[in-house]
Amino acid sequence: MDLFDAMYTQRAIRWYEPDPVSDEDIRKILTAAIHAPSGGNRQPWHFLVVRGAELRQKLGELYLGATQNNRTQGGHFETPTYLRSGYDFAQHIGEAPVLIVACIETGTGDPFRRGASIYPAIQNLMLAARGLDLGSCYTGNIFGVPEYDQATRKLLGIPDDVIAAGLIPIGHLGPGEHFGGAMRKPLEEVVSYEQWGQRAG
Amino acid sequence: MDLFDAMYTQRAIRWYEPDPVSDEDIRKILTAAIHAPSGGNRQPWHFLVVRGAELRQKLGELYLGATQNNRTQGGHFETPTYLRSGYDFAQHIGEAPVLIVACIETGTGDPFRRGASIYPAIQNLMLAARGLDLGSCYTGNIFGVPEYDQATRKLLGIPDDVIAAGLIPIGHLGPGEHFGGAMRKPLEEVVSYEQWGQRAG
Repeated sequence: MDLFDAMYTQRAIRWYEPDPVSDEDIRKILTAAIHAPSGGNRQPWHFLVVRGAELRQKLGELYLGATQNNRTQGGHFETPTYLRSGYDFAQHIGEAPVLIVACIETGTGDPFRRGASIYPAIQNLMLAARGLDLGSCYTGNIFGVPEYDQATRKLLGIPDDVIAAGLIPIGHLGPGEHFGGAMRKPLEEVVSYEQWGQRAG
Repeated sequence: MDLFDAMYTQRAIRWYEPDPVSDEDIRKILTAAIHAPSGGNRQPWHFLVVRGAELRQKLGELYLGATQNNRTQGGHFETPTYLRSGYDFAQHIGEAPVLIVACIETGTGDPFRRGASIYPAIQNLMLAARGLDLGSCYTGNIFGVPEYDQATRKLLGIPDDVIAAGLIPIGHLGPGEHFGGAMRKPLEEVVSYEQWGQRAG
């Protein structure tokens, strides 16, 4: 698949067929992930691949709990309603045949800048899925609620010095899902030249 | 260019020809960036494209200053010596024909998780450059040193409620530079199945 076609048609897929994803495809997806850059090429990442039905169900329950908690607390819910209902997604996330938990060693320094060593890998991972006609969707909701973050870490045995950066379900596209057509602000609104706010190049 | 070829051969390029990058290529690179996902599709990003020689020189001087400061303070220097000397990179970064400053609105919540709405766009941006046979290299050094971060923001007019996430020089590959061959830990070291530390799938 062409690089630009993959990037331009990537979109969050939130509904998956239960059919398994092949070992070969999972390996390709993970290999793409670890080819991403990281600060000083230190590669402080780790990827947990969850395929067992029981463990996926438990993870799904925790995700739903975190979502409900987030709503109750008036927290921002990250899935926009014009796509697929975030609540539906939360109810069914455990049914995706593969759940990948992308992790990073805590390290030191500015937490925001630490993200430069894991989110590019997650993006590669999702682009690779797109390239294999597999849907994926990044979500960090569950790890933003301490109680659920802790429960998830305990369930998967994630050590204390490791941050769970994201949960990414992967699977073949379910009914009604499609690639492409993601809405974006026009380039002109988000690009300046030479000086902030200067719109012409 | 094939998606997987692009991802597998991306590497940090730190030495550029002074030849300009076409407007069309810059537009393709930025269009790729804004197709990346962001939390709730809110797209809190902004990209500053710097091509003027004087402004690039000033940015380069600030970058060098931040690098020297970082060394003096015993801070970790992000460019590994087995690639190109980070200090050489810092001395010449302003000579790259294009410098892109990737920014994000400060927003609220966990700073680490905020990165999910800008680093995937930076990764798309750099993959697009790779797809166009242009080199790029992410660095956040300059923004990690408050004094230099402030000076850079002032130079470019970046507002207070915006974080400068990264500086990305872009250009045609200089002498001795090449794509591919980036060193990575083997997949087996960074992937677990079902439970942290369980190496077999």
